Parts: sequence; C-alpha cells; structure tokens
Amino acid sequence: MTNFDATKQMFHVPEGVIYLDGNSLGPLPVAAGARVASMMADEWGEMLITGWNTAGWMAQPMALGDRIGRLIGAEAGHVVLGDTLSIKVYQALASALSMTDRKVILSDSGNFPSDLYMAEGLIRSLGQGHELRVVAPEDVADAIDETVAVTMITEVDYRTGRKHDMAALTAKAHAVGAITVWDLAHSAGALPVDLAGVGADFAVGCTYKYLNGGPGAPAFIYVAPRHADRAVPALSGWLGHEAPFAFDQAYRPGVGIERMRVGTPSVIQMASLDAALDAWDGVDMADLRSRSIALCDLFIAQVEAATDLTLASPRDGAQRGSQVSFHHPQGYAVMQALIARGVIGDFRAPDILRFGFTPLYIGEDEVRRAAAILAEIIETASWDKPEFHARQAVT
Amino acid sequence: MTNFDATKQMFHVPEGVIYLDGNSLGPLPVAAGARVASMMADEWGEMLITGWNTAGWMAQPMALGDRIGRLIGAEAGHVVLGDTLSIKVYQALASALSMTDRKVILSDSGNFPSDLYMAEGLIRSLGQGHELRVVAPEDVADAIDETVAVTMITEVDYRTGRKHDMAALTAKAHAVGAITVWDLAHSAGALPVDLAGVGADFAVGCTYKYLNGGPGAPAFIYVAPRHADRAVPALSGWLGHEAPFAFDQAYRPGVGIERMRVGTPSVIQMASLDAALDAWDGVDMADLRSRSIALCDLFIAQVEAATDLTLASPRDGAQRGSQVSFHHPQGYAVMQALIARGVIGDFRAPDILRFGFTPLYIGEDEVRRAAAILAEIIETASWDKPEFHARQAVT
Repeated sequence: MTNFDATKQMFHVPEGVIYLDGNSLGPLPVAAGARVASMMADEWGEMLITGWNTAGWMAQPMALGDRIGRLIGAEAGHVVLGDTLSIKVYQALASALSMTDRKVILSDSGNFPSDLYMAEGLIRSLGQGHELRVVAPEDVADAIDETVAVTMITEVDYRTGRKHDMAALTAKAHAVGAITVWDLAHSAGALPVDLAGVGADFAVGCTYKYLNGGPGAPAFIYVAPRHADRAVPALSGWLGHEAPFAFDQAYRPGVGIERMRVGTPSVIQMASLDAALDAWDGVDMADLRSRSIALCDLFIAQVEAATDLTLASPRDGAQRGSQVSFHHPQGYAVMQALIARGVIGDFRAPDILRFGFTPLYIGEDEVRRAAAILAEIIETASWDKPEFHARQAVT
Repeated sequence: MTNFDATKQMFHVPEGVIYLDGNSLGPLPVAAGARVASMMADEWGEMLITGWNTAGWMAQPMALGDRIGRLIGAEAGHVVLGDTLSIKVYQALASALSMTDRKVILSDSGNFPSDLYMAEGLIRSLGQGHELRVVAPEDVADAIDETVAVTMITEVDYRTGRKHDMAALTAKAHAVGAITVWDLAHSAGALPVDLAGVGADFAVGCTYKYLNGGPGAPAFIYVAPRHADRAVPALSGWLGHEAPFAFDQAYRPGVGIERMRVGTPSVIQMASLDAALDAWDGVDMADLRSRSIALCDLFIAQVEAATDLTLASPRDGAQRGSQVSFHHPQGYAVMQALIARGVIGDFRAPDILRFGFTPLYIGEDEVRRAAAILAEIIETASWDKPEFHARQAVT
C-alpha cells in the first residue's frame, strides 16, 4: 500500500497554500535543492568536463528514462530524456510519417496547441501534401480510418481532463494500419499508463507537471522496441549518432531509442528531476489512481453542493485524468481571487477553472478547504464586471 | 581596462588543476550555486506556477539573449535563448532555406559534426533535392558561388582553432545572393564578434563553453532584424506563437526573434547562466582578445621550445580562436597523462591535443606550468604503445 503521508513530506508547499496546479508545474521536492547543489559543487565544480563520464551525465538521459518508463509501462531501455515536449512531438511525428505513405495526421481539438503547431510546421517542411485533420475529441475513434497515417493524441485533455481510451484507440489505429503517437503530458505520474501493454508505437511527455522535475525539466520520448531500430530521428543531432565521439562527418543513427537524442542534455535540470523521481519509488500506480479519483470526486461533490458551477470534466472518474475543471464566464477573475486566498489552480481560455489533484502531496483536507474557499468566492463576489483580458503565463 | 584578476576570482577551479578545457565546458562560477539555490527555493518553491510571471521566467530567454547579444554585436532584442545548439542550427538553416530557391548548403569539413548531421536530417525531411556541399575550410571562400543557398559555417574550428573571416565570407555570400548561418560555439565569449557590423543573417551558439553556463545550458539564436519578421521558425512551438496563452489551434509566428522559441525553457539552467554572465559585465572584448592571443602565443612558444610537437592551429593569432591544438599520434594517451597531472585539455580524434585559453580565469602562470608538464610527459613517457581506442565523452 502506497504511503501518501510519506510522499507528502517529500514536497515543499508554502504555508497557507493549497496547490492544485501540479498538473502545470509540480512543487519543489524537498531533496531537489541539495541534489542540484551537490551536482553543481561536487560534479561540475570539481570534475569539470570529466563529469560527463565520471558523474554519469552522459548516461543520465537513459537512466532517467528507465525511471520514468516504469511509471508508463515502457520496456526497459526504450525511453530517453531530452529537449522539450514540442521537440519530442516533432521527432515522434516525423518518424511515424516516415514509416507510411499515407498523408493524414489525425488529432483532436482538445490536444495541446503546441502539438498541433509542431505538426503544422512539420507538414510545411515536408511539403508533401500532408493533412492535419482535427476532429472533436469524441469523434476520434470514428475518424480513425484507412486514410490515417498517424494518430497524434494527448491522452488527457489539458483543459477538461477528459481521458481517451488509449488501448481502444491504439487497437483501432492498428486495425486500419495507422501508427500512434501518444502525448502523455497529463498522464505520466497522473495515472497508470501501459505503453507496452496497449502496443503504443510512439509516446512523448514532460517531466515538470506530475513528475515534479522543475520548470524547464526535459521531456521524454518512447519508441516501441519493434520500431526503435528503424525510426528516423528527423532531428539528427550528434548525441543520437551511433558513435558521437568518432566525429564522423556523416550521420549514422544510434542503437534504438538513443537515436532520439539530439544535443547536450540539461544536466542541472536532470539533477532536480532525479531527486523528484525518488518520490515515486514506493508508489503503486493503482493506489495513486484510486486516490486521485477519490480526491477529484470529493472536490466535484463539495463544489456542486455549495455552488451552481458547471462541471467541464467528465463526471465518471474512469473517463478523467487527475484534474477537475469547471466553467465560469469570469474564470480568469475567479482564479485570481482564489490565488489571493492561497488556492492555486489555473485558468484556461475561454472560461475554464482548472484544478489538478496530485495524490503525492494533496489530501482530502486540502480538497475540502479548496472547495469551501471557491464556494465563498462565488457566493460573495460580484462577477458582473467587464470582460477580463485572459493572460496567464503558465502551461 | 578589463580587470582579469577580478574575473578570475569569479570562478571555481579545483586546487591543483590547470583547466584548459573551458572551450568544452566552462568552470563553475562562484555565484552560480547560490543563484540556482535561490531560484529553486525562493522562486519555484514559494511562487510555484506564478514564477513564470512573478519571477520573470517567461521573459528570461529574451533578457539573457540581450546579455549575450552585447558580446556578439547583435542588435538589442534580436537574440533569444532556448533548446540546444543542434536544434537552433536546424531552425536557422530551415529558415534560411525557406527564403531562397537555391538548393546548396555550403559547409566545411572543419564544422562540428552535429551541424552537418542536422543539415542532413533537414535535407531528408525537405525531400527537395537539397545538397550539403562540404569543402575544406581553406576552400570555403572560393566555393561561395551563385549556386549556394546558404553558407553554414562555424567561425572557429573546434579541433584546430582555425578562425574564418566572418566579415569577408558574409560579404562574399551576400555578393552572390547567398544567406549566412554562423555557428558561434567557439566564438561567443572567446573573441569579439560583430554580427550587426558584418551583416550576418542568422547566428547560433551555445552557452556552456566560454560563457560558463553549466552542462546543458541553453543555446541561443540570432536573426538579423531585416529577416526577423519573415523567418519561418520550422520548429513552430507554442512559445514562439504570437499569443501562446490564447491557445489558438492555428500557429501564428510571434514578433521577431520570439518566434524562434519552441517549448518551455530550462529555468534552472538559465539561473546558472545568468550568474555566469555577471562575469562579463566589466569585460571589454578587445582586451579579452589581446589577452587570449598573448596566452595562446605563449603556450605555443613554451611547448615548441621544449618538445617537437607539431602545431595543429594557425600560428598567426589573428587566424585563431582562443585555443591551441597540437598533433600527437598517441593523443588520447597523452591527454590522459596530462589529466592525471592536473592539466585538463581534451583529445579530438584522430590525433589532436586541444587546449582552450580563457582569459577570464587563465593567466600566464597556468600557461607556463601546463606547457612544462606537457613537455615532461612527452619527454619521459614511452608512447610506442598499441593504438588506444579513442573515446572521450566531452563536446
């Protein structure tokens, strides 16, 4: 049984703050500061350039990949860290497209915009008449047909928390000969993922949300073992070369997932992420999932009992990720009022109040207090103000 | 007059080490640990997600871009940080190619392999019959003709330190209608660069070498003002969107250089880099250059007086960057022996001993001691050993 009292002690949340935005940026792990300080002073400071080997910096993108791989059901040795999620989306998509003659990239309107933008840029670069076909989330399954080259789907919707059925959509895609690219930005560390079990082809994700690696922590990419040695990395950087230190003039892709490496990894960020991942060592993902659903259900019940807010997330926990969203026409202003009271969630245009429930450090007490404060704000304030300009610099 | 005694105090070099590899990874700035610790504890820890605005994380890639821009002669507001150098090479090259119908990318065999690999990958993606034409460094000027779309040149050769004439090559390129992409990996912080003055089109570079940002510090990209609002970013990520937080489904490139941003920047790495850049505040680049040439000249003179090593770098300081290389058939083993004696340079296949001279923290005393130790090693050891397998995990 996972000890969530113990994991809660592993994170710093400021006094008086109820942090319901770990789905955007996870909080500081208590151990991260010392880990980074040691990496800087003892490794960079003392080992200098030799740290690449002596301190294992060069191997760390694969080592951290395996730590994350355990949480997402990846085969060992098939996940590597690096770059940002947008870059990894691009690589996965370009690789997938290189395996098929079909031209349609299927995605949905609930996908995070950067995935769509990266696809747009790739299509323009390829100049081969590819089409980005964007359907409503509920129409994805029906839209997977023989014209589809690649499905590019984010499992959990960043605004509503609506969760796709990864197993069913992957099976459907494979049945019609399409390749799957899964974005796990709101899945990794939020719920059990079984990449190997569902037979996913490519997956990508970030490590600064539920994995708590810190702002700008590197992304990860997974390539199924059956594709790993034929995937074309598209962004063919030297650290993805078969022999980076031979300094050959011609590119030869490295073995398996290592070819998805591009340039020099962010070693200071990785030190922070490494400390953050310690919190997962004793976590059973099934325990995490049941607690996550219970916390979300409780929040919905408390908010609906005290307000007339409209739920923007699926009511059925099995259909949700680890977040709950409500609509409010003055959502931005409501969220500012919440933040002023110490309840940090976030606002997503046009009218979404979004709250992440991260069992590693959020419990029932925080859920009840957050719901009560939200209810007070909704009840007492006057919201018939001019439209606020929606600006909030968070992911 | 630049006070190099003062800058030397701003870096930590371990007792007994003569560090001649700052051209690969700069040493730890004394202030970096506290700056990063504060960013983590006071910003991430206390501000959580609001740090993106409150602590200025979102604006930092542009702010740091301007600090670096001063060192490379860029117009204010035209340099932005992010990603790795390989990614920025790809963006610059893709943008440049989109501005011309010509098909030839001209580079030279002294370029860093990752630049060539990224060009290879881009050409494959484009599938339009582009050609990567690689000539010897000394033939670059003559090879710039009307067939050339883009010159992709690293100003200073990573192995030999040979320095191209950026002004002359840029002028030649423009005279024949070609676009220039300059890689400043071994230039930024190593010597004066005058991007605006020479009329460079695109430039990219890294910040973990002479700029001492730490392992994995972000890269930078410059786009000339005349191109900045029409450059196609190719890797079109959400932070390069005109309005990232509008979460539009369609990509619209941001204003000027901001469009070259892709995903979430590495905030912890930027804190370290920010501290590192403080060392440059009082540095006059002309002073730096004359001191750099004097240190390199002294090293050459001392080594040649005591050994029969063959110089691999140009003898004329004006033709060199801030490093000196010598050939040795057992270069890897010699470098290992040097490192064991506390002199850290590096080895580059097939036979290059490479030594970087970074005036911010290296002086005449270190140069004389390093030359003496190298001479002792060459004189006393027996090098008729079986060929060593050249492996060294450094950039």
